[in-house]
Formats: sequence, C-alpha cells, structure tokens
Amino acid sequence: MIRNTGPVLKFRMRNIALLIQYDGTSYSGWQSQPNAVTLQALIEEKISKITGRQVNLVAAGRTDAGVHALGQVASFKTESTHDPLTIRNALNALLPPDIRIMNAAYADAEFHPRFDALEKSYIYIIATDRVVSPFVHRYAWRLPYDLDVDAMRAASLNLTGRHDFSAFRGAGCGAKTTVRNMISLTIEETNAIGFMTGSISGRFIILRLKADAFLRHMVRNITGTLVEAGRGKLQPDDIKKILESLDRKKAGPTAPACGLFMEQVWYKDPLQW
Amino acid sequence: MIRNTGPVLKFRMRNIALLIQYDGTSYSGWQSQPNAVTLQALIEEKISKITGRQVNLVAAGRTDAGVHALGQVASFKTESTHDPLTIRNALNALLPPDIRIMNAAYADAEFHPRFDALEKSYIYIIATDRVVSPFVHRYAWRLPYDLDVDAMRAASLNLTGRHDFSAFRGAGCGAKTTVRNMISLTIEETNAIGFMTGSISGRFIILRLKADAFLRHMVRNITGTLVEAGRGKLQPDDIKKILESLDRKKAGPTAPACGLFMEQVWYKDPLQW
Repeated sequence: MIRNTGPVLKFRMRNIALLIQYDGTSYSGWQSQPNAVTLQALIEEKISKITGRQVNLVAAGRTDAGVHALGQVASFKTESTHDPLTIRNALNALLPPDIRIMNAAYADAEFHPRFDALEKSYIYIIATDRVVSPFVHRYAWRLPYDLDVDAMRAASLNLTGRHDFSAFRGAGCGAKTTVRNMISLTIEETNAIGFMTGSISGRFIILRLKADAFLRHMVRNITGTLVEAGRGKLQPDDIKKILESLDRKKAGPTAPACGLFMEQVWYKDPLQW
Repeated sequence: MIRNTGPVLKFRMRNIALLIQYDGTSYSGWQSQPNAVTLQALIEEKISKITGRQVNLVAAGRTDAGVHALGQVASFKTESTHDPLTIRNALNALLPPDIRIMNAAYADAEFHPRFDALEKSYIYIIATDRVVSPFVHRYAWRLPYDLDVDAMRAASLNLTGRHDFSAFRGAGCGAKTTVRNMISLTIEETNAIGFMTGSISGRFIILRLKADAFLRHMVRNITGTLVEAGRGKLQPDDIKKILESLDRKKAGPTAPACGLFMEQVWYKDPLQW
C-alpha cells in the first residue's frame, strides 16, 4: 500500500502502532464480522473519524468474544499527519472507557503486529472460592472447588518446549502449522488479586503462558485440560498422551473466555512507546 | 415484630445478617424507590423467593446510586428455618454476579445494622493518569492531572476529630445531628491497584475515611474539596474555614459516585461470620 514513486504520490503513508487494553466482556471479539460489535470494527470506525479515511487495523492477536487484553498491539496505515499521541487522545475521547489506547507510536512502514511478533504471553485467572467478589467475576473462571495445583504444575511440564499442539487447537483455526514453542507455562496461587491491595481477597490460580505463537483456543483448551488434572480426573502422564495423540477430542473442555487476558507481545525491534 | 407470647406464636423469628459486596455501577443505590433497580429491592425479592415471605432488609449504609460496597452489612427477620449458609448460597444462585452475599450469620434479635454500628470506613479511589485502564475506570474518579498529595494531606488534618460537618453534608440528608467523629483520614499514593499484581499500573490516590457515622455525600464532598486543595485552588487553612462555616456552598464539588466504596462496619459485638 506504500506508494513511494510516481505522480499519484500526494502524502506519505505512516504506519501507526497502538497499545490497547480492553475489557472484552461486551464485545464479540477482535475480528470484524457482520451484525456484531467487534473491537476491530469499532476502533477502525473511530480512527476513520479522526483521519477522514477508512483504515484497516491489524492486530497481533485476534482475541475471541469475551477475551480481555492488557497489551494488544495493532497498527494501521494512514496519510494523516496527526502525531501518534494526538491520535491516541482523540481515540480515547471517542471510544467507550472499556477500550483504551494506552499508547501510540510510529512503526516501520513494513511493521506487521502479528507476523512480526516473536513471542506472546497470555494470562488465565481461575477463582476457586465458593463466593467470588463482584469485582472479580468478569475476569475469572469461577470453579467453586479445590484444585490440586501441584498436579496441575506436574501436568503442565509436559507442555513446555516445541510440540505439535493439534490436540489443543480449536475448531476454525486457520494456522498453517500446528507446531508451537511453549517458552514457559507457570501456575501461581495467590490470595489477593483485588484491585485494592488487601480488599479483594480470595483464592486464585493464575496461569501464564508464553509461546512464539498460539493456535486458536490453545490457552483455553490447555487451561481446561490442566483443570481436569487439578481435579484428579487426569494424571500428569495423561497430558503427555493427549499432546501426542494430536486429537482435540482427547483433551479437556475449553475454559471460558472471561478468564483469559492477552498480556504482552514481543518484537525484535521494540516499539518506541 | 418478635411475638414471643400468646397463641399466635407459631415460629420463632430469626434475625439473619448478611455481609454483602456489590459493584454499584448498574444500580440506583441501596434504598428502594419506585421505577428504579435498587439493591435493597432486588435482594429483598430474592430473599422472599427463598423464605416465602416478604422481608424488610435493613442496611448499615444506604449507599447512593453508583457507589460500591466491599463490606455492606444488612439484616432481615424471618421465620424460615433455613440456616444462614443455605440462605447465602441460595441468594447467590438467584442474584446477578455483581452482587454477592459473601457471608451470612445469625444476629441477636435486637441487632440493627445501622443503629448498632460503632464505626464505618469508606475508600475513595482517584486515578490521575492521562489514560486509565479499562479494568479500573468503573472504580475510580478519573482526573487526568497531577494532584499535590502533600497539600491534600495537610488540608485533611483539619477534618479529623469531632466536628460539625454541615459544610460537607449533601442535600436531602436526614441525620438528626451533623456532628461526627472522624477517627482517621489517610491519603495514599500507589502505582498498582491492578487486580493482577503488576499488570494494571498507573497513578492512583486512595483516600480512606473512618468515622462513627457519615452524613449523606460526606465522603464525596470531602474528597471533592481535598481535590481542590490538591489542585492548589484551596489552601489547607481554607479547609478549616469551610468546616467552620457550616456552609455547604463553601466546600468543593461532590466527587462522582463511581470512586466510592463502603469498606467496613464495626460493631460492639462482632458478627460471627
């Protein structure tokens, strides 16, 4: 799309990257689709109001309906001469407060948020209390029973490293290869994830997965399977067999979207926020 | 209502206390009113479904529209023989997840959540970042400029102790006396109130007020006035003059409801949750 020669060149195209947080509760996921309120379509519409032209906003991760983001990265090309911070502030004035452009910066003309991503991390939150605080319920999978976290950790060890993750791939996944490198998978227990220290207490299990890339529903399918291990329905060795089976039907259920957060994306050339 | 003599006595009345958390965003406050979804009416309706009788649910604090609660205490009298935990679990199954009965317990027959309260505390959260995380915006007053927290603290010193708080009393307050004992008023700055440690960062100012009781809008009027001090529009000594004037028009604006949390209620005989 970059026309850098010829008489049609009027304005230089700029590639603007956005760092985005969103509470996904009210949205039908990232990717535009008919008759649904999607993050992509909503943010594209607001960018167009600012730049005066239709834009195509490309994201690092096309999160599903209900999934949240702490560090989504997206970019669009524009002839607008507004600087990134002006665009950020104008967008935040137009967007609802459950979507925030945390930062904006110029990116290289060739920058692509998804293809250029070296690593990504996701967080998944499980709340195991019998009663879960109203300030947490939108952001956690509520499972009102004890989970054996040591068993979940033992099971998770089978999933780190480079594997064919076909058994954890959701339907409709368009990835060309199913081999992914799971760089790390940690499981922590904590008694406080309250947004005010000490005020929101409870029992929470937080999974954090970092990989070169993820297949569709991969984090949620892994989480659902590790929960089966935590309930004693699967042994740690079973996870190895499930992985090797390459058969989605062998793995556990898909954990609900509300507990999932896209956390961070890493690039070879970090964006200069 | 306790009929403990005569032939009409069929069932012993029990007084059940509830410890309640709610996200007040979607509600028109605690107190029942026509054509509005209130916390009192909604919870009373669900209790009636469980006990088969209309009940009157009395709260420690009648929070305004949009105000949240971390530790609201309310009680109702019932002939039902369901034990408190059964009632708690049944209520949570009927109530939306932005209202949670965290605990339930038998209280003395004479227990009154408001009249018996010795002390109460409220928290008020201010977010001063230019861009506020979507995971915080429902729970903070967003003020995108620097506040001089030391000036706010200096101003607040004039408000501790026993005073006539008429200058900070909202319209429609039905309290018989306007003298209150402000036991403590602290102002803290923090860089993380994220519901996941480290993930939601920002600049936050958290006010915590503890008093024997509060007048209507008192915390929000004090917060609005201390913010004027933080902006340099009022000097610490001005707060003293405002307090002594007993004139609501002299004080600052009412801070918005969304930043306010009813935190805790103290009783001489603590409830046995």
